[in-house]
Formats: sequence, structure tokens, C-alpha cells
Amino acid sequence: MAKPIKHILRKKAIFKVNGSLWIECEGNRFFGPGPVELLERIIDTGSINQAAKQMKMSYKKAWEIIHVLNEHSAHPVVIMQSGGQRGGGSLITKEAIQLINYHRSLRKRFKKFLENETEKLSF
Amino acid sequence: MAKPIKHILRKKAIFKVNGSLWIECEGNRFFGPGPVELLERIIDTGSINQAAKQMKMSYKKAWEIIHVLNEHSAHPVVIMQSGGQRGGGSLITKEAIQLINYHRSLRKRFKKFLENETEKLSF
Repeated sequence: MAKPIKHILRKKAIFKVNGSLWIECEGNRFFGPGPVELLERIIDTGSINQAAKQMKMSYKKAWEIIHVLNEHSAHPVVIMQSGGQRGGGSLITKEAIQLINYHRSLRKRFKKFLENETEKLSF
Repeated sequence: MAKPIKHILRKKAIFKVNGSLWIECEGNRFFGPGPVELLERIIDTGSINQAAKQMKMSYKKAWEIIHVLNEHSAHPVVIMQSGGQRGGGSLITKEAIQLINYHRSLRKRFKKFLENETEKLSF
């Protein structure tokens, strides 16, 4: 058991354990807060183009993220529809919703882990 | 409780939950794997200059990391000694050792968290 670090850290300053989390497949990150936000915005706007604009991301970048998500899924999470400007609308599948929900519960568990660790800093 | 995502992810591929962790003070990251590695290499080599070289980092960058670590600590973790090339040797304090040990135990708990989450991917 390592010693507490409260006495090492500067007094009267607020310290926090923080971090980031993602899912990788054979070493390549493909899923995390960014792709989830993109999926959520595609649901909101019904359009990859609009979702990308809101995130200040190029259409190409958004398309790549979705392509990688689809590639790593048993069934596509976004179905591109042809026709219209920028390839028409996009259909979000129930798998995308499940991924978003999974991510929410994962974030919740991670938040708890970080809060626990932050609390330990003051012991 | 969110549904398991096993059936959403592509079959026959190996997925892993991974992440990174750091400590921040009022929004600024100041402690994580990088600074810890630097401290460990200063212990090994007895020199900030050597440690920085091994990490392919400029002496200035290494010095900044140590400066920030010292600033956030109740007592300095590295004491710069004057004289000689590049400001002489560096003295690692017992607080630095405690920080390294704390970081090891934190990483252990984080590793367990990530392993648990990775296991859940296959449920």
C-alpha cells in the first residue's frame, strides 16, 4: 500500500484525478467521446454534414469516423443514403443507439472511479 | 443498466477498453506517466540532462516539467544543484519517491478498472 500523497501536494490548491477513455481494436482507437458526440449530433440534425459543421469538423473527417465505426460493428451504425446534397440524409440504426447508451454507462463508471481517486488525494 | 455491446461489435476482432490518467490542479495537468518517467530516469542517471536525452526531450522541456512538479508540491521533488555542465547534478527528494509510488498504485487500480471494462465487452 503506497503512502497517501496529501502531504506531498501543495496546500490550499485543488487537485483532481482526471482521464480519458476509449475502445480500441487491435491497437487502433475507434470509439470514444468524439465519435459518440458525432452520432448524437447526426441523430439531432439527421445529417452528417450538419453534425460535422456543429463539431467544426470536415465532412471528410466525420465520414471517416463513421466508416471506421461501421467497419468495427457487426451491423452498420450509420447507413448513408444516396441522393441530394452531400449524399442525402443518414440513417442511424438501433446499434448506434446501443453504442451511445453503452458509452453513457461506461462514462458513469469511469466518473465514479475518478471521483474515488480524487477523494483519496485528500486522505 | 445499458445492454451489453458484444452483439454490436464485429466478431472475431479483439476489443479493449483503454485510457489515460493524470492529476490536474485547477484545470492544468501536471502529473502523469510522462513526469513520472522523467523522475525515474533522473534517479537512474542522476542528471536531468541525461534523463531528458533518454526521453528524446529537450533539457528546457524537462526543466519545465520539474519546475511545475515542484510548484505543485509542498516540498520540492527535485532540487537543482548548481555548478558543472548544465547546472550540475539533481537531487531527488523522498517526496519524489512517494509520488512515484503513489503513481504506481494508481496505475494498478486503473489497470484493474480497464481490465474489468474490457471483460464486460465480451458479455
